[in-house]
Amino acid sequence: MLTLAYLLAITAEAMTGALAAGRRQMDLFGVSMIAFITALGGGTVRDILLGNFPVNWTKHPEYIYLTVGAGLFTLVIVRWVHKLRQWFLVLDAIGLVAFTLIGCNVGLELGYPVPVVIMAGIITGIFGGILRDLLCQRPPEVLHRELYASVSLIVALMYLQLRHWGVNQDSTLLAAFSVGLLLRMCALRWHWRLPTVQLPVTAAP
Amino acid sequence: MLTLAYLLAITAEAMTGALAAGRRQMDLFGVSMIAFITALGGGTVRDILLGNFPVNWTKHPEYIYLTVGAGLFTLVIVRWVHKLRQWFLVLDAIGLVAFTLIGCNVGLELGYPVPVVIMAGIITGIFGGILRDLLCQRPPEVLHRELYASVSLIVALMYLQLRHWGVNQDSTLLAAFSVGLLLRMCALRWHWRLPTVQLPVTAAP
Amino acid sequence: MLTLAYLLAITAEAMTGALAAGRRQMDLFGVSMIAFITALGGGTVRDILLGNFPVNWTKHPEYIYLTVGAGLFTLVIVRWVHKLRQWFLVLDAIGLVAFTLIGCNVGLELGYPVPVVIMAGIITGIFGGILRDLLCQRPPEVLHRELYASVSLIVALMYLQLRHWGVNQDSTLLAAFSVGLLLRMCALRWHWRLPTVQLPVTAAP
Repeated sequence: MLTLAYLLAITAEAMTGALAAGRRQMDLFGVSMIAFITALGGGTVRDILLGNFPVNWTKHPEYIYLTVGAGLFTLVIVRWVHKLRQWFLVLDAIGLVAFTLIGCNVGLELGYPVPVVIMAGIITGIFGGILRDLLCQRPPEVLHRELYASVSLIVALMYLQLRHWGVNQDSTLLAAFSVGLLLRMCALRWHWRLPTVQLPVTAAP
Repeated sequence: MLTLAYLLAITAEAMTGALAAGRRQMDLFGVSMIAFITALGGGTVRDILLGNFPVNWTKHPEYIYLTVGAGLFTLVIVRWVHKLRQWFLVLDAIGLVAFTLIGCNVGLELGYPVPVVIMAGIITGIFGGILRDLLCQRPPEVLHRELYASVSLIVALMYLQLRHWGVNQDSTLLAAFSVGLLLRMCALRWHWRLPTVQLPVTAAP
Repeated sequence: MLTLAYLLAITAEAMTGALAAGRRQMDLFGVSMIAFITALGGGTVRDILLGNFPVNWTKHPEYIYLTVGAGLFTLVIVRWVHKLRQWFLVLDAIGLVAFTLIGCNVGLELGYPVPVVIMAGIITGIFGGILRDLLCQRPPEVLHRELYASVSLIVALMYLQLRHWGVNQDSTLLAAFSVGLLLRMCALRWHWRLPTVQLPVTAAP
């Protein structure tokens, strides 16, 4: 189930990357590259930070084809994308939860302490989007819109807690997905967000 | 002494990150993340470039709490921050010197040649700030304001030279801190800066 | 031949970095740093992604002097640079091909599958320029101007195909350089580019 969710997730993330790149008038190569980086960048940053070589996608070259293909396909269906918006946001939320859980698992397998495992989950969940926004020169959306990174944090905490209590893997995954998806969907529906800081741009120092 | 300076340094850097993120209307999560990246990003980039795994903060999860805590605390005291500006700049300068010396030490321990050791020092000193400015979409301040990166270079050169001459560790550290702090403080006081290049934006190619 | 092309390449790339930094009013340190990152960033990202430690330039500290020197020298000759524009673009194209071939070789030596080898070539070819543009806050030029990244892809594909057919190394290199340079020069001369995507900036989601 986690693998299926992962494949859905990288496809959805590649599509968000392609759309962002398209809005920046990038060429087909740029769109493919941003799709690839958005989908696989989070896991790549995690693997590098944790010293987990070889980096995941270099062992699965089919992910390169999948993400580049999804990026280019997005351009074909772009005029219908806004009609598919609801599905898209659901896929993206599934991706966020799947990325987070996979990131936590990698951290756990490598024997890192709990706070690092949580960071590994969050980084896997959000860094693809951060790299996409950096390369497309826009503010990193996951850090100031409806709850997103926070959903990743909550899913990671819940997953580790249930695992600590010895709940079996299937129930744990089910619970993490249910809570994560529900929270993200509610956040989108009612524009839940964390308090935003309002400092004047000129504030010292 | 170096460890104490390091803890002060990551606290001060986390605070500059939180302020920059706050000015960008990021949410609480964004502020925490930018604080963390600003404080620990320089050392992380250094460890990755030198192949020094596991990356430092993954062995010291308490640094995660410290930097995130310092970032959030900054928001609480933000209205007094400008009154503390002088202290803040001193802490930041201590951080620059401490980061540089620690970076050089890591490079030396891994047996890298001298120019790489110097790069390791500078990267540790300045890359946290560069990552902060990238994520907050502003020009990398350390590369065109009052002497900053150059202080890091001078401290690194002095440290290696004194070490080469066999001066004992305590005197070397003391000298490096004195010169580094003095230079940075003078640069801030009298707006010393390196010559800035003035190319027309349209200059070929 | 490849080594000579590589040295020309990092020099040319360092100069493009210095020009970009100069246009951003960076100081001498900033210019040096951006020159260094533009020239050696692509290979560094490749080495990190492939887990190929120690990273190339840490074994060749003379590259640090070469790239920083080339960057500073560019400032001296900047008023003549636009007269040298044609030479400059040829050097840059040689660099693109050399970087791509070297990246492919590193991937092959480490035994990675073919798609990863191609990615290694492209990343070596284009990531220096992407990092330069990120740090200078401009859109990543290699992803939406005259054929550039695509030349890297074609060179990588051709190199691997000729190698697969058992063509000897010299002929393979000669063919890759000829086709790569010709294609890039034609692209510049007649403004060949890949189709650019034109999505409205507000397109959902």
